[in-house]
Amino acid sequence: MVEHSGLDIMCLNKYCHSSSSSSSSSEHDKKIFSKLKHSLSRDYPRKNAEFLSGQYGTNVLLIGAALMLAIAHHGPAVKEEHLLSFVTCLMLLQLIWMMWYILARERQKNSRTEKDVHATTCWIRGGLTLLALLSLIMDAFRIGYYAGYQSCVSAVLGVYPVIHATHTVAQVHFLWFHIKDVIKSFETFERFGVIHAVFTNLLLWCNGVMSEAEHFLNNHKRRLSALGQGNLTIVHSEPHCNCTTSSCSMFSSSLYYLYPFNIEYHIFVSAMLFVMWKNIGRTINLSSNQKRVATKTQGLTLGPILGLLALASTIGILVVYITHVEESLRTRQSAISMFYIYGIVILVFMCSSSASGLIIYRADHVPLDTSKNPSRQLDTELLFGSSVGSWLMSWCSIVAVLGSESSPPYRWTNLVYSLLIVLEKYTQNLFIIESLYRQQEGREREDPELLAAPEIFSVTSSLAPPYNGIINRAYETPDRACVPMENEQEGGGQVYRCPRKPLEVPLPLENQVVEPPNIKRQILKNISVFLLMCNISLWILPAFGCRPQYDNGLEQETFGFSIWTTVLNFAIPLNLFYRMHSVASLFEVFRRV
Amino acid sequence: MVEHSGLDIMCLNKYCHSSSSSSSSSEHDKKIFSKLKHSLSRDYPRKNAEFLSGQYGTNVLLIGAALMLAIAHHGPAVKEEHLLSFVTCLMLLQLIWMMWYILARERQKNSRTEKDVHATTCWIRGGLTLLALLSLIMDAFRIGYYAGYQSCVSAVLGVYPVIHATHTVAQVHFLWFHIKDVIKSFETFERFGVIHAVFTNLLLWCNGVMSEAEHFLNNHKRRLSALGQGNLTIVHSEPHCNCTTSSCSMFSSSLYYLYPFNIEYHIFVSAMLFVMWKNIGRTINLSSNQKRVATKTQGLTLGPILGLLALASTIGILVVYITHVEESLRTRQSAISMFYIYGIVILVFMCSSSASGLIIYRADHVPLDTSKNPSRQLDTELLFGSSVGSWLMSWCSIVAVLGSESSPPYRWTNLVYSLLIVLEKYTQNLFIIESLYRQQEGREREDPELLAAPEIFSVTSSLAPPYNGIINRAYETPDRACVPMENEQEGGGQVYRCPRKPLEVPLPLENQVVEPPNIKRQILKNISVFLLMCNISLWILPAFGCRPQYDNGLEQETFGFSIWTTVLNFAIPLNLFYRMHSVASLFEVFRRV
Repeated sequence: MVEHSGLDIMCLNKYCHSSSSSSSSSEHDKKIFSKLKHSLSRDYPRKNAEFLSGQYGTNVLLIGAALMLAIAHHGPAVKEEHLLSFVTCLMLLQLIWMMWYILARERQKNSRTEKDVHATTCWIRGGLTLLALLSLIMDAFRIGYYAGYQSCVSAVLGVYPVIHATHTVAQVHFLWFHIKDVIKSFETFERFGVIHAVFTNLLLWCNGVMSEAEHFLNNHKRRLSALGQGNLTIVHSEPHCNCTTSSCSMFSSSLYYLYPFNIEYHIFVSAMLFVMWKNIGRTINLSSNQKRVATKTQGLTLGPILGLLALASTIGILVVYITHVEESLRTRQSAISMFYIYGIVILVFMCSSSASGLIIYRADHVPLDTSKNPSRQLDTELLFGSSVGSWLMSWCSIVAVLGSESSPPYRWTNLVYSLLIVLEKYTQNLFIIESLYRQQEGREREDPELLAAPEIFSVTSSLAPPYNGIINRAYETPDRACVPMENEQEGGGQVYRCPRKPLEVPLPLENQVVEPPNIKRQILKNISVFLLMCNISLWILPAFGCRPQYDNGLEQETFGFSIWTTVLNFAIPLNLFYRMHSVASLFEVFRRV
Repeated sequence: MVEHSGLDIMCLNKYCHSSSSSSSSSEHDKKIFSKLKHSLSRDYPRKNAEFLSGQYGTNVLLIGAALMLAIAHHGPAVKEEHLLSFVTCLMLLQLIWMMWYILARERQKNSRTEKDVHATTCWIRGGLTLLALLSLIMDAFRIGYYAGYQSCVSAVLGVYPVIHATHTVAQVHFLWFHIKDVIKSFETFERFGVIHAVFTNLLLWCNGVMSEAEHFLNNHKRRLSALGQGNLTIVHSEPHCNCTTSSCSMFSSSLYYLYPFNIEYHIFVSAMLFVMWKNIGRTINLSSNQKRVATKTQGLTLGPILGLLALASTIGILVVYITHVEESLRTRQSAISMFYIYGIVILVFMCSSSASGLIIYRADHVPLDTSKNPSRQLDTELLFGSSVGSWLMSWCSIVAVLGSESSPPYRWTNLVYSLLIVLEKYTQNLFIIESLYRQQEGREREDPELLAAPEIFSVTSSLAPPYNGIINRAYETPDRACVPMENEQEGGGQVYRCPRKPLEVPLPLENQVVEPPNIKRQILKNISVFLLMCNISLWILPAFGCRPQYDNGLEQETFGFSIWTTVLNFAIPLNLFYRMHSVASLFEVFRRV
């Protein structure tokens, strides 16, 4: 290397000499300056713009987290008002950005915006609108509460729900009309706008989770001291004056039944906005940007029936648990035992149905679809990531059961329940992920034996006439005409199936199967409906206060009160999100199979 | 849809009828069974195999985490022995897998294994070998400690260091000879093996972090009670018998100086194994699988000098801090003030050098390299992810300073320091990521004006003779021969630069730049060396006990002892990892620019 460098320098000097001979120094300075100015105004490279905005968003969230941690200490320095005013500012900023975005789109109306059809579906947006409505009711309750205590609480408590309600309405509008947009202008600026929205919603989620956890923890401490177990201090955050209206306590107690919905609303919106952020500047592959989904409810019996049974028994269990757990030690123990036995039964069913789904897939080899799809990738990562909370909780329970010295009646059922939770999430994740990644060009592809027999032509009606001349005509013999099979496309396109010409390819032996060809699909549909309803059940229980992890005492003995409540405060919100998210994914699976 | 389904069923029935007419029911059953058997033995689809093994690894880690949480409570049920025996089992399993892997490779010696050259570099492996050696010394100390207390401690404490030493030696061998392999046989099984290794190392990292944090926390509590501030219980885990050798206390106290190295060793190995896992079954694009790196140290003055200055002052600060912080309140406060002022100075320099690096990049538009490279992607994600810990700590400090009622002398310097930490990580991450993603085909590409002038031919010597006939001969005029420029390839290839033929393309005006063409590169090299040394400095300080976040009392006042120590126990290990990881990345940047 040393030998060559001499030559290198020589060559470079020669080059520099020849180029500098005709320019003066001041001209050169100007040029450099104008070049630099031009370069700085140029669009930022995409990878860097992603990190630039991602880091901004993360820091916004961390400021919020720092404030929350300070509030959790209940010190004199940082109060809830500070956090709420910070969040209010963030929401106002998001409102301004959304307004700007919508106006900018209006102006460019003549140029068509690209859309990513995978970004979201109608029914997800419908569900979110419902959750948003419940959030609005919550805001109304908050305003009512503020009106009652107006004289002695900070004005921020009144401003926050008003801004939150406006934010909710504007955001739902945004979700319906703009969430699928693929942004291609002002990319760097829009990136900041979208990531700001993502992290504002994430912060609102964290805030909801914290309020909910604190409320539950206070209830739990009250229960413990009623049982004479605790010398724990309960922190009351009641205002220091009397309520001027009659319904203050009604407002504050109803709030906690609405929290679960508000929490799910924000986390889902944040995930959808994240997909929008990932899509900025992306070039959509139009051929893969078509969704073919046909929901067919034929043969759906066992799945929904079992699912409804699970749902009904869940509500029964919830009521019995909540009424019994506050009573004597004996009823408390029996309530906990009942919960675990119920859980074991439902989990065994869930594990075996996911496992049979996987076996069906193994018996039916289809290549996976590996095309780029940020929405699907996020779905799988979130499923996997949010399982971690619940797995940690389960392993802690298992360690506690094995190491514990006391032996309450529910000790071994707790062990089995925890092991099943781990197994159930493991198999269910695999089932959902494989279902989402399987290719589905025309539904018959699912049965490879059938593929050889009838040829399927998918024709989008807007692009071509129903009988696509050149290809189809070859198969049009009087007795083997193409028959319209089914309306398989969203856009009203039609799918034609033409029986294979018998002379061209002899019917393979494997085709001689007696079973109706879509029995596998029917089984998969039943499985997904059943799993969906079970996941709703397992969401309802912790969301509305049935949390035996707090009440059974085993884990608390092994881990201590503070470590165990920290674990639960981390794991339970993740678990709730996991359940809701898998409900959404399973619905998608149900529509695809 | 309803109209069509009738036709659909009819068609399907017709089809089924014709195919079933020649087969009996029992034959059919047999066929289904053999088909199922065949499908189950087939290779699992890649996406699913990833999740299958990823979920396994995560659960292994979570079991370990649950055990650690139980140990942190210091209850009677779970003891350190349990965790150590679990970890020992995992290491044994990994040893067996590595042995199997190496033997299997030996057998297939005739078929060449593909390698991913981006997976790691010689100097990273060299560094890891050094860290591994220090880990071996640590194991020796552990064995010595066990020998002294043999009579009263569990045998696991003796077995663990022996297995750990074997594991370290075998793993370093594996790193040198197999980490770049792209596995293409027994993919699903190997996936489990590699992910097991990843999470075993991650668990060993967690274990190291926990022991280190506990040791530091005990020291801190002792210090607090010496200052009369605390009624905190210090948990001693000393054995209940006397040491039979004279050097037990020496062993146990030296251990803590070796912990930082052991911790970094495990997390780095785990990251490298993760890249190997990501590479399983991957098809390497051979054209992008060439590394052209030439380290040229010409013009390196200011960066190394400033860096060495920073390093030297760091060691001074460390010694002064550690000796002064244990004395009276006054010296303690002045030590903390000194730390913050030193930090502000160094961070201002770091921020401005990263920022100038970014400005140089903006002035010099080069398209980013977006080819697939799991190693680089992991690097950027880890940089971003590990920044979160330090950012959270900084924002907590900022909230504490703004909300605090007491006002120690270092209050506002703490604020400035924390803000600068946020800014420094922000700009440094952007600088490193942009450096890693910039295309570097031939180093002259970095200056786009130069590109038009000299043509560069890169010729690997093993593939073609130095003067590649057809292309080069066209340019070979007596006065403008191709001159060997520099040894730019690892494999000993040579790069030839042939001056452009003057008649073909006229010299553009922009080329008339006076500055030597590689001044930008020299500045970037200086910046990366300086940043590298600063990051080493900022690693040394917390790694060897200079942690003013524990000592300054401001945050503890706002967040309370337990919340704040939890934040620190989470954030400091991440921050240490961030510093080490950015040192490695900056070295890579230094070699590339």
